[in-house]
Amino acid sequence: MPAYLEGSRARVVAVLEELIAEQRRRSPGIEDRTEGRLEGDPYGPVLYDLMLDYPLREAKGLRPALCIATCRALGGNLEAALPTASVLELYHNAFLVHDDVEDRSHVRRGGPTLHAAHGQAIAVNVGDGMLALTLRPLLANIERVGLGPALRILEAMAEMSERTVEGQAMELDWIRRNTWELSDDDYIEMVVRKTGWYSFIIPTRCGALCARSDPKVCEQLERFARDLSVAFQIQDDVLNLVGGADEIGKDARGDLWEGKRTLVLLHALRTAAPADRDRAVAILAKSVPEVSLAGVPSLLARLEDQGQLAPAGRAELERALGLAELRSAAEVDALMELIEAQGSIDHARRRAREHLEAARASLEAATRPCSTPATGTSCGAWSISCWSAAGDRV
Amino acid sequence: MPAYLEGSRARVVAVLEELIAEQRRRSPGIEDRTEGRLEGDPYGPVLYDLMLDYPLREAKGLRPALCIATCRALGGNLEAALPTASVLELYHNAFLVHDDVEDRSHVRRGGPTLHAAHGQAIAVNVGDGMLALTLRPLLANIERVGLGPALRILEAMAEMSERTVEGQAMELDWIRRNTWELSDDDYIEMVVRKTGWYSFIIPTRCGALCARSDPKVCEQLERFARDLSVAFQIQDDVLNLVGGADEIGKDARGDLWEGKRTLVLLHALRTAAPADRDRAVAILAKSVPEVSLAGVPSLLARLEDQGQLAPAGRAELERALGLAELRSAAEVDALMELIEAQGSIDHARRRAREHLEAARASLEAATRPCSTPATGTSCGAWSISCWSAAGDRV
Repeated sequence: MPAYLEGSRARVVAVLEELIAEQRRRSPGIEDRTEGRLEGDPYGPVLYDLMLDYPLREAKGLRPALCIATCRALGGNLEAALPTASVLELYHNAFLVHDDVEDRSHVRRGGPTLHAAHGQAIAVNVGDGMLALTLRPLLANIERVGLGPALRILEAMAEMSERTVEGQAMELDWIRRNTWELSDDDYIEMVVRKTGWYSFIIPTRCGALCARSDPKVCEQLERFARDLSVAFQIQDDVLNLVGGADEIGKDARGDLWEGKRTLVLLHALRTAAPADRDRAVAILAKSVPEVSLAGVPSLLARLEDQGQLAPAGRAELERALGLAELRSAAEVDALMELIEAQGSIDHARRRAREHLEAARASLEAATRPCSTPATGTSCGAWSISCWSAAGDRV
Repeated sequence: MPAYLEGSRARVVAVLEELIAEQRRRSPGIEDRTEGRLEGDPYGPVLYDLMLDYPLREAKGLRPALCIATCRALGGNLEAALPTASVLELYHNAFLVHDDVEDRSHVRRGGPTLHAAHGQAIAVNVGDGMLALTLRPLLANIERVGLGPALRILEAMAEMSERTVEGQAMELDWIRRNTWELSDDDYIEMVVRKTGWYSFIIPTRCGALCARSDPKVCEQLERFARDLSVAFQIQDDVLNLVGGADEIGKDARGDLWEGKRTLVLLHALRTAAPADRDRAVAILAKSVPEVSLAGVPSLLARLEDQGQLAPAGRAELERALGLAELRSAAEVDALMELIEAQGSIDHARRRAREHLEAARASLEAATRPCSTPATGTSCGAWSISCWSAAGDRV
């Protein structure tokens, strides 16, 4: 990572901490409470403290880094991009909080998900609170980057949120309909929406807007960002299958446990013999139980062992609770074996490399006319920072 | 309702329908899909269609009516306020979708809640999608009402969302800590945040901003709006206890089933004999089970009747699933009897009337200098529309 990006993550976290502290101070009625009318801080423990939970966990800070790096490379300075970069990090973490509820995920960045630790109600509200806090810094941008760029950044955030929920909706619709006959292009359309827009395209666009740069440059950079996002996401899916739990900060092979549509898995299903595919789809049709039911399967087994529950009653309860739907470790292993037999990880790596090459070409086209030695950085330095933030993983 | 407000609800719904239709058209890649690459509309069934579900159900349209009425009374026209009023309705419905998930509510406006019908994942995402769509019309406001008012409306929306999640957090914190020793003032602070800001204060402020009116007038109107919101909310709580299910569009006595902190219930607990209070608090400590577990209690009872499940096993399962926590109809009746014995509904009605009187006084102070016969309406007509939208219920 180039020198001018070092420490940017710490700066971003500091901005978020100050944003939330300011919010606590601004909240009307706080003076009544210090006079003892209401005990303690009624929002802190279930709102403002929790907004910082995910952002303070170990993370790469990819989105703010891309925004800041783009701004610097195009002649802007760190101060111009910092609030916008921090808002991107806040959006990212808000999306994660809600996604974890939606995906029933147990682990995030090496710790329990917010809803696993505090319940769904608090997690949904904390996510909404984080989204609410994105607006003020973007309005304050007017003084920092000028009215035109500030308004275009607000529009960019609108577009980003719209695309993100569309990507999430595509995936939820496939889950709901148990759809597995999907091409690489279907997958790419979904992940570009679900994560590409908010992780790559909009951070890049916002960085360029903070530097008040030419819309044409923005356009070319967005092609670069789109391809980089595809390469990144495919590699993320590969890592989930071949990496250890420490490395990925989530459940190992969590994507198979959760039955996620990944380029890897979709390739395995497309190329498998019909009988193998049908067996895999039957395994994948099973849904993930609610986090709150995690201990119930073993309880049912024990009650049956102790003669307190008849086998037929257990089966009926498992159906009613959606537990018959749980994938077993053996079934997850079977999916992994199919993936290996079909060479699907190699296929995914090839596709990732293709998109990385396309990204490189777009970057070269975009940066040819925009070297900015005056700032002490250049598009060359910027591209290095992009690879180090994202591309090296492929 | 005065003539100039008639039909405003239909106009607001039409704006929301067009906003969502435009969003579908704008979504990139739609042209690929019509060429058959992806089957059908991948977002419609789980995103855009569902965004209109709550807004199209029978509702009063209180928030947009307040915004439009305020704008008209202060000399603005319907067209100036319509987009902002529609965004307020969109926010309101997005909050309802997420609140219903958080409160585990089964019924909303006479139909199943969104998460009861489509699952939590889709409901959380639809709420996020509705929030995402609020931003563009507010940016387009710049051309309609001018830059200054448009930016102040955006700030108002930020403040509104912040206060709303704080109110929700206060309530969730009380639930989490099983706190019941709360004064009328505690309750009022919570409900003003949770619903007063987005239902009364900000719709009024936005209406005044759409009419480009004096900030001083705004300030006085906000005192009016705050008191009206308290009166309205207390009356809503009373209706929940004494009205039929048809009238309130939710579960009858749903607040008692859900164990909600209402001014009525808190008064009953504060004034009851210690033994009665302890019994009531024990009933209220029980939590509401997940919607997905609705059929499980009767299944457990049947399995025990059939000799498939031992009584001890049933008790253990009920604890593990949080079903031992379910309130019974007899327990809800006991709470209602306590409320009646303590005269708590009369107390609540008195408090509601006090706030209504305070609202009336603030309104008179605010409207003395601002009669605007030129528009064919006046603050008198406006106050009538406010009462007919909200105040008459008290």
